[in-house]
Amino acid sequence: MKLSFSLIVVLTVVGLVAHMAPASGQTGEGAAPVFVTKILPGYRDWKLISVAHEEGNLNSFSAVLGNDVAIKAYRERKLPFPDGSIIAALHYRFVPSEENNKVFGQPQSFVAGDPTNIQFMVKDSGKYASTGGWGFGHFNQDGSLGGDALLKTCSPCHAKASRDFVFTRYAP
Amino acid sequence: MKLSFSLIVVLTVVGLVAHMAPASGQTGEGAAPVFVTKILPGYRDWKLISVAHEEGNLNSFSAVLGNDVAIKAYRERKLPFPDGSIIAALHYRFVPSEENNKVFGQPQSFVAGDPTNIQFMVKDSGKYASTGGWGFGHFNQDGSLGGDALLKTCSPCHAKASRDFVFTRYAP
Repeated sequence: MKLSFSLIVVLTVVGLVAHMAPASGQTGEGAAPVFVTKILPGYRDWKLISVAHEEGNLNSFSAVLGNDVAIKAYRERKLPFPDGSIIAALHYRFVPSEENNKVFGQPQSFVAGDPTNIQFMVKDSGKYASTGGWGFGHFNQDGSLGGDALLKTCSPCHAKASRDFVFTRYAP
Repeated sequence: MKLSFSLIVVLTVVGLVAHMAPASGQTGEGAAPVFVTKILPGYRDWKLISVAHEEGNLNSFSAVLGNDVAIKAYRERKLPFPDGSIIAALHYRFVPSEENNKVFGQPQSFVAGDPTNIQFMVKDSGKYASTGGWGFGHFNQDGSLGGDALLKTCSPCHAKASRDFVFTRYAP
């Protein structure tokens, strides 16, 4: 889940760069704009889609939230997701809870530690046509946009998901 | 987290039984009513407080949600929680995601599996005075209320939490 949200939109990016700066000849990675460049307001109030945990280098704890359009589509099992759907993955460190373990009497409890990043998927079948209709964004804890190397991994990975680029299933 | 939500409210229960059936002489466990006996409507639309995972016999994945009163108290760091606060813990099996692992190329991804139970904490400092001002409820997947043996463990365990009977901290 975590690694997969990113911003590669090669064809559209090339087109956009060409439109913005036709004389510059910039077609490399450094000039590539990304589609979701600002943290979307209000995401922390969105409803729960589900939770996830990744081991390994990620060691992440995720809460996946959706705006009303996305939640409605999930609940109605509507695929592909309609334009306007937005999915936010809030990532935290996966850490043991000393307080909980003390109460349980054994090490068994894990909770969300420090936040690490927030990732968005925005459905707009026209704007993001070159990447399955989804725009991707990755924002570091300080609010900065993720680097190109990371952002380029999002779309190709999500393309492998079995349901319209989306890995996360709705938890009832 | 999971084991701790329950319904023991001994003193109040004794009082309530005496009031309801003064001639019956029922004061044992079997006659003990519980405080939160129905699943609270709308909880699935509440906002996210945080996520949690318990290993061991529980093997659970939790999404902890709060109604507006609880979320406001969390965000304002208000303790004790005001009357009207309700916290819901949605529990699922902690299971590997075959689809995600296939994409990652290694077993590292865990998601929410089948739902197992839902637990509530309802703050009403008058009604639930005998248990720290909190009423507890545990509902099995079929919607049935948890048994007395389980329900009796909630309040004593939550009393060990450092912040007004609540273990879960707010994830930013």
